[in-house]
Amino acid sequence: MERIKIVIAYDGSTYKGWQIQPGERTVQDSLESAIKKITGADVRVQGSGRTDTGVHALGQVAHYEVSKESRMDSGEWQRALNVNLPKSIRILSVEKAPLDFHARFSAKAKTYRYEVDTSPVLVPHKVDRVWHHPSKIDGKVLKAACQLYVGTHDFASFAGNRGNSIPTSTERTIFSIDVESHQDTISMSFSGNGFLYKMVRLLVGAAVRVAEGREDIEWIKKMLQDPGKNKCQYCAKPDGLYLVEVSY
Amino acid sequence: MERIKIVIAYDGSTYKGWQIQPGERTVQDSLESAIKKITGADVRVQGSGRTDTGVHALGQVAHYEVSKESRMDSGEWQRALNVNLPKSIRILSVEKAPLDFHARFSAKAKTYRYEVDTSPVLVPHKVDRVWHHPSKIDGKVLKAACQLYVGTHDFASFAGNRGNSIPTSTERTIFSIDVESHQDTISMSFSGNGFLYKMVRLLVGAAVRVAEGREDIEWIKKMLQDPGKNKCQYCAKPDGLYLVEVSY
Repeated sequence: MERIKIVIAYDGSTYKGWQIQPGERTVQDSLESAIKKITGADVRVQGSGRTDTGVHALGQVAHYEVSKESRMDSGEWQRALNVNLPKSIRILSVEKAPLDFHARFSAKAKTYRYEVDTSPVLVPHKVDRVWHHPSKIDGKVLKAACQLYVGTHDFASFAGNRGNSIPTSTERTIFSIDVESHQDTISMSFSGNGFLYKMVRLLVGAAVRVAEGREDIEWIKKMLQDPGKNKCQYCAKPDGLYLVEVSY
Repeated sequence: MERIKIVIAYDGSTYKGWQIQPGERTVQDSLESAIKKITGADVRVQGSGRTDTGVHALGQVAHYEVSKESRMDSGEWQRALNVNLPKSIRILSVEKAPLDFHARFSAKAKTYRYEVDTSPVLVPHKVDRVWHHPSKIDGKVLKAACQLYVGTHDFASFAGNRGNSIPTSTERTIFSIDVESHQDTISMSFSGNGFLYKMVRLLVGAAVRVAEGREDIEWIKKMLQDPGKNKCQYCAKPDGLYLVEVSY
């Protein structure tokens, strides 16, 4: 067998998220269908993690295994996949990986970007691609709120419930959060060793709430100090979230 | 009568350009239909100029006249138009204008932006929104080529033919061209007192051709010195063109 690592970009607005679900158009399903068209085989594509309905990727990583008979070089795989995929999913790179490489378990760090647009009327080019939130956001307060998240914390207050799958630990380390503003747009980049379900959107939701003066910054401190006691109820829209990079 | 000035953003990828054409979906037609829904009247919307199929706007300007009976304030007009327009067209602002204001004839300057993406595989979010041109472009040469365009020239070599409508003069003044590069993207902003049909796309096409080493910079100098003798044949795709601002 041969293990292939791919880096994928997708426009999440027309997909029911990453993970295969019966009767739904998902990114994982589209990739497996493309590989089946190329090789004739049923192949499982393993992503670095799921992304929700509407969430985008500019650098999602996945792997799959193929038999040595269907051997193609990386460039051939990339072209064949892009020919057989819809335009809303693009393979940015392909490389052969060692057999012990695992897109999910080998990941060391992930970077997500979140985009907010505060202009009164959203230009058509940004529909489904940012969180349109016409509001007065104090950039300094937003940065201060985000700095509270940096470091190792129990993020139980910032975890969504995903059915019966309960993570064994809700402790995660955020290495850095960069906040950049330009006119009516705010871009926040989160780098960390991993993120809980809906965690980035809940962190954004809380920070924006404080930065527009609706909550005091102490509210965030308390949610970090008493993990899971009072969970954050403000989840920013999926439209503004991009999985930018997975590091190994 | 009352004259209304509107600033419009649109995603050109789903329109057959600005100007009304029988049986085609155009921006002008969509605006006139929205006004008819609001007022019941047939109203002509006059734009600052046409944009071609696939060309975008972030700051197109137009005016129209309504009878005083249908008087609404600017905010009411903006909301009513946005409710009655498709999401791919947004009214960014509305103001009452003097009766001698004319979106086309009162215009003093226009700014267009052109976006090129040279990455090997285009991310899905940029499909229809940039010229995807995977090529090695020398940024310094591109800037030097663009500087040749600045000033007052006879741009006949950079004018497309639009049926039987021949402009009386092909002289135009370009005030400035700003070229910015960031990773695989190049953004060029053209400000001038007016632009001929397809002029920006022809200027971009020629400058890119020189910057990727396929033509010598003297080729551009000659086209400017002998206007219309050897017309530029390289027209950059409409996808990357944005009408950004019209000044009065």
